Amino acid sequence: MSKYAIGLDYGTNSCRSLLINLDNGDELGSVVFPYPSGELGILTDPSDPNIARQNPQDYLDGLEAIVCGAIKQAKEKDTTFDPSDVIGIGVDTTGSTPLPVDEEGTPLGLKPEFKDNLNAMVWLWKDHTSHQEAANITATAEKMRPSYLAKCGGIYSSEWWWSKIWRCLNVDPEVFAAAHSWVEHCDWIPAVLTGTTQPDQISRSVCAAGHKAMFNDEWNGLPDKEFLTQLDPALADLRDRLYDKAVSSNQKAGGLTSEWADKLGLPEGIAVAVGAFDAHMGAVGAGVKEGTLVKILGTSTCDITVAPNDKTLANIPGLCGVANESVLPGHYGIEAGQSAVGDIFLWFVNNLVPDSYGKTVGEKFENMEVELAKQKPGETGLLALDWNNGNRTILVDVRLTGLLLGQTLHTQAHEIYRALIEATAFGALTIIKRMEEHGVQVREVVNTGGLSLKNETLMQIYADVIGLPMKVASSEQTCAMGAALFGAVASGTVTLEEVQQASCKMQERVYTPHPENQKTYAKIYQLYRELHDAFGTTEWQGKIDHVMKDLIDLRQQARTGK
Amino acid sequence: MSKYAIGLDYGTNSCRSLLINLDNGDELGSVVFPYPSGELGILTDPSDPNIARQNPQDYLDGLEAIVCGAIKQAKEKDTTFDPSDVIGIGVDTTGSTPLPVDEEGTPLGLKPEFKDNLNAMVWLWKDHTSHQEAANITATAEKMRPSYLAKCGGIYSSEWWWSKIWRCLNVDPEVFAAAHSWVEHCDWIPAVLTGTTQPDQISRSVCAAGHKAMFNDEWNGLPDKEFLTQLDPALADLRDRLYDKAVSSNQKAGGLTSEWADKLGLPEGIAVAVGAFDAHMGAVGAGVKEGTLVKILGTSTCDITVAPNDKTLANIPGLCGVANESVLPGHYGIEAGQSAVGDIFLWFVNNLVPDSYGKTVGEKFENMEVELAKQKPGETGLLALDWNNGNRTILVDVRLTGLLLGQTLHTQAHEIYRALIEATAFGALTIIKRMEEHGVQVREVVNTGGLSLKNETLMQIYADVIGLPMKVASSEQTCAMGAALFGAVASGTVTLEEVQQASCKMQERVYTPHPENQKTYAKIYQLYRELHDAFGTTEWQGKIDHVMKDLIDLRQQARTGK
Repeated sequence: MSKYAIGLDYGTNSCRSLLINLDNGDELGSVVFPYPSGELGILTDPSDPNIARQNPQDYLDGLEAIVCGAIKQAKEKDTTFDPSDVIGIGVDTTGSTPLPVDEEGTPLGLKPEFKDNLNAMVWLWKDHTSHQEAANITATAEKMRPSYLAKCGGIYSSEWWWSKIWRCLNVDPEVFAAAHSWVEHCDWIPAVLTGTTQPDQISRSVCAAGHKAMFNDEWNGLPDKEFLTQLDPALADLRDRLYDKAVSSNQKAGGLTSEWADKLGLPEGIAVAVGAFDAHMGAVGAGVKEGTLVKILGTSTCDITVAPNDKTLANIPGLCGVANESVLPGHYGIEAGQSAVGDIFLWFVNNLVPDSYGKTVGEKFENMEVELAKQKPGETGLLALDWNNGNRTILVDVRLTGLLLGQTLHTQAHEIYRALIEATAFGALTIIKRMEEHGVQVREVVNTGGLSLKNETLMQIYADVIGLPMKVASSEQTCAMGAALFGAVASGTVTLEEVQQASCKMQERVYTPHPENQKTYAKIYQLYRELHDAFGTTEWQGKIDHVMKDLIDLRQQARTGK
Repeated sequence: MSKYAIGLDYGTNSCRSLLINLDNGDELGSVVFPYPSGELGILTDPSDPNIARQNPQDYLDGLEAIVCGAIKQAKEKDTTFDPSDVIGIGVDTTGSTPLPVDEEGTPLGLKPEFKDNLNAMVWLWKDHTSHQEAANITATAEKMRPSYLAKCGGIYSSEWWWSKIWRCLNVDPEVFAAAHSWVEHCDWIPAVLTGTTQPDQISRSVCAAGHKAMFNDEWNGLPDKEFLTQLDPALADLRDRLYDKAVSSNQKAGGLTSEWADKLGLPEGIAVAVGAFDAHMGAVGAGVKEGTLVKILGTSTCDITVAPNDKTLANIPGLCGVANESVLPGHYGIEAGQSAVGDIFLWFVNNLVPDSYGKTVGEKFENMEVELAKQKPGETGLLALDWNNGNRTILVDVRLTGLLLGQTLHTQAHEIYRALIEATAFGALTIIKRMEEHGVQVREVVNTGGLSLKNETLMQIYADVIGLPMKVASSEQTCAMGAALFGAVASGTVTLEEVQQASCKMQERVYTPHPENQKTYAKIYQLYRELHDAFGTTEWQGKIDHVMKDLIDLRQQARTGK
C-alpha cells in the first residue's frame, strides 16, 4: 500500500498543491489557485509603488480549492489512490511575509474594523516601503550588534520581518497597537490547519526566524530588548509577545483538525509539518544535500546548500543567510542568490531585441538561442555585469547597475544575450567560490525553475563557466515537492533521506563542462571578477586598461583558433 | 559682374561638383556622379575584406560629368551666368588615397598590362590591408624618429601613405617596380586638369603630405633615407622619385589645359588650385578660422581648427595631425576626430531597437528622438564610452571597444540612444580640452554634415556638454564649397578671407548651452573621463566604485529635483 503526502506552495500571485506518491515521487495531482484580490493577488496603492500587501482570505479560499482539486485529480489518475493514505501535509510560502494578528490569532485584515486598511493586511516580501527602517536597523546593528548582521550578509533588508513591523509602527500606530503579535505566512497556514492560531501556540519556523527575524541561539533567539529599544521601545515590548523557540520543518506543527479534515476530505489528525520559505523547501524538493547546491533559476535566483552542523560554521561574508536547520535537520542551511537572472533576459528581450528575431518574446528568445549556440566562449568579445537589479550575493548592494563592454559596430542582439547569460553564470560562480572559501564544498549543482528546463544553451554555458556538472530536477514543482516531503517526515513514519531518495529525481541529461570552454571561461571570469571588484567594492584599487584588450585577444582566438 | 568658382569633391563612393557665385556663396549647380566600378565605386576582393581600391578611370569619367552638369544647372538657374566668368577650380578628395604612376604620370591601373591587378589601382584610404606595415612604421619611428610620430598623435595608421606603398612592395613587387612614383588622389586630379601629370611636375599638397606622408620642414620634407632604409631599402630609393616640396591650396597648381577647357566648356588657363583632403577643405567651406572649430559630423567625425603659425606650436599628444598650412595659409592646421559617431547610432538602431519605435530606421530614430528629448541630463542613469570603433583622438587606439553602464531592469532603447549621443559629445569635449591644454583656443563650434542638420536634440546636447555655442553651416556641401573657394583664391584675384566671408553662411539657429544642463553634464563628464582614462590609458590607476552610485544620485536628482 502506497502512502501519499501533500505539499502546499504559496507563491506571490497564486498558491499551488502537489500530491505525491511517497514510493516514487509520482505527481498525482496539482492545482493552481490565483489569488482573487488586488492585481494578480497583490494589494497595491497608487500613491506608493513600494506597497505590496495580500489578503489573508485569499490564502484560506485557495487552501480548500487546491487540496480538494489535487485529491480529485489523484483519484482520476490512479484508481488505487485513497485519501486516507495521505500521511502528511507540508507548507511553504514566500517570505518574509508577516501578518498582524490579535490575541486569538485572527489576522487583523480579516476583522471588519480593519478590512479596508492595507497596513492590517499581510505585508508581502516584495513590499519595499520599509527601506528606511531597514537602513536604520543595519546602522544600529553595525554599532551595537555586528554579530546580527554577520548572519545575513552584512545588510538588513526591507524585505524582512523587523523592517516591515517597524514600518507599520511608524506609519500606522493604531494597527501596530491592535496587533497582539505578528506571524509569518508560512507559520500561519499550518496554525490554521492544526487549530493553533493563538500566537503562543504557533510553531515558528526556524527557516523564517533564522534568516529574516535575526533569530539565533547564539544570542538566545530574537534580537535582545536593548537593541530593539534602540530602534523603538514598542518593538522591545512586542518581543515578549513573539516567540523564543523556532523549529525545523521535519517537526510536526500539529494534527489536522476535524473541521479541515472534513473540508479537505483527508483523515483527521494527520501530520501538518512546520512551514518554511519556498526556496528552502524547493531545495529539499530538488534533493539538496551536502555537496549539492540547488539553484532555483527564475526571474532572480535562490542558491541553497547545506553544511553539517557538528562544528561551528564561520559566518560567510556577503551571503544573506546561514541558519541552523533552516533547510535540513542536522545541517546549517546556507542561502544566497542573484537579484536578477531571468529578469535581465526579459528586460533585454522586451526592450532591445528587434523584430528581425521574431514577433513574440518567445520567438525572439528561441531564435537568439539558435544563433548564440553557434558561438564559442570569447567569440562575442563582450563582457557584462549582471547587476541590472543590484547584487544580492556577494556584494549585498542594491545601488549597483548593469554594465556591458566590448561592443563594436558589428555586435548583434544575440551576442549581447549570450554575454548576459555568461554574466549571470559568472555571478553564480562568484557565489560558489565564496561558499568554498568558507569551507562549504560544492560538488554538483541541481537546477530547478523555468530557465533550467527551457534553455539548454544556458545550462551548458553554466556548466562551462562554473566547471561543475549541472543537473536539472525532474519535478517542475520542487517547492511543493519539498513541502510534501516534510509533510511525510512530520508524520514520524519516514526519514527525510528516505523520501528524498525516492522522490527527488533528476532529468537524464546532465550538462558536463567542456574542458576547452572551461579554460576560456576561466580567463574571462578573471576579467569579470576584476570589473566586479572594481565597480562593486570599496577595497579595490588598480588598473583595468587591459580588460578591453584581453577580450579582443580572446575574441581573435575564438575566431581563428590562435 | 559676378565671378564664379567650381569645387570638385571626390568622396568614397561618388564625386560631386559645386558651382558658386563668389559674391554671396549662392550655389548655382551641383551634380553627383557615383563611381561605376566595383561595389559602390570600391574594388573589393572576397579573399580579404580589408582590400578597398578604386579605378582611376572613374575619376576621369566623373570629372567631365559633374562639371558639365553643374554648368548646365547654373545656366538654367541664373540666366546671367556665363561660364567665362568662372575664375578657378579647386579639388578635394579622400585621403590618404595614393596611386602608382609610371614615368609619364600615367596611373598603372589605366595601363592594359595592369588593368586586372588590384594592386595597380588606387589604394583607397579605407583599405586596411597594411595594418602590419603601419605597426612596423610606428615601432621603427618610436625607436629612430620619435619626432615623426609626435605630429600624428603617436601612432602611424594603415590608412596612410607609407603603410600602403610599403604594403604594395611586400605583396606585389612587380607593381611596386613598375611604379616610377606615387601620387595622392588629391594631387592627381589637378595634375590632370593642368596637364602636369609627370611626377616631377606635379604640385604636391601640403595637407596630404604633412599629415599622412610624415612630410615636415623640420626634417627637410619626407622621412629621411636612413629611416626608410630601415623599413625597406626600396622605399629609400623611392624617396628620390617623390617630392621635396609641398604647397598649400591657395596656390595655383597650373592653368586649365585647352583640351579640358573644351571638354568642360570653361575658359582655357583658369586657375586650378593645389588639391587637399576633403575634411580640410570642408573646414574652410564651413568658415574655419582662429577660435572656430569645425566638426564634420558623419559616420565618424573630423574636427578641424587652425592656430597662427607665427610661433612654434608644440605637438599635441593624441591629435592625429598638426601640419603647417594644411588648412589655411599662415596657420597650422589642427586635425582630430572620433572614429565613430553616426556609425554608433546606426549600429544601435540596426541591431538593438525594437519595432515598437517604428518600422524603418528613419522612424525609429525619429521616435526615439521624441522620447529622449523629454529627458533631462542624468535622468537615464546611463553612461557610455563612444569606442565601438576604437578611439582616434585623443587615445589613438583601435583596440578599444564600447561600454555602457547604469542599465536597470527599466532601461529603454531611447535612453541608451541618449547615452550614446552624450558619449559622443563627451568624446568631442575631450578633444577640445586637449587642444586647449596646448594653447589652441576654441570659442565656437561650427557643425556640418548630416547629423548637424537632422538632429536638433543632438545639437542641443552637444552645446550643453561642450559648453560652447553650436552653429551649423548653411551649405550641405562644405567640402566642395571649400574647394571652390580655393579655386577662386588660386586665381590670385581674391583672398581666402574675402571669399570665406562672402560665402560661408551659418544657419540662423544657434544652439547655446543651457546653464543648468551644463552643470549636470560637467559632473557626468568627470565620470566619463574616469572611465575613459581607466579603460583607455596605461597610466590610470585608482578606484571606480563610486561611478555607479554617482550616476544613481544624479538620476535621482534629475527625477525629483533634489
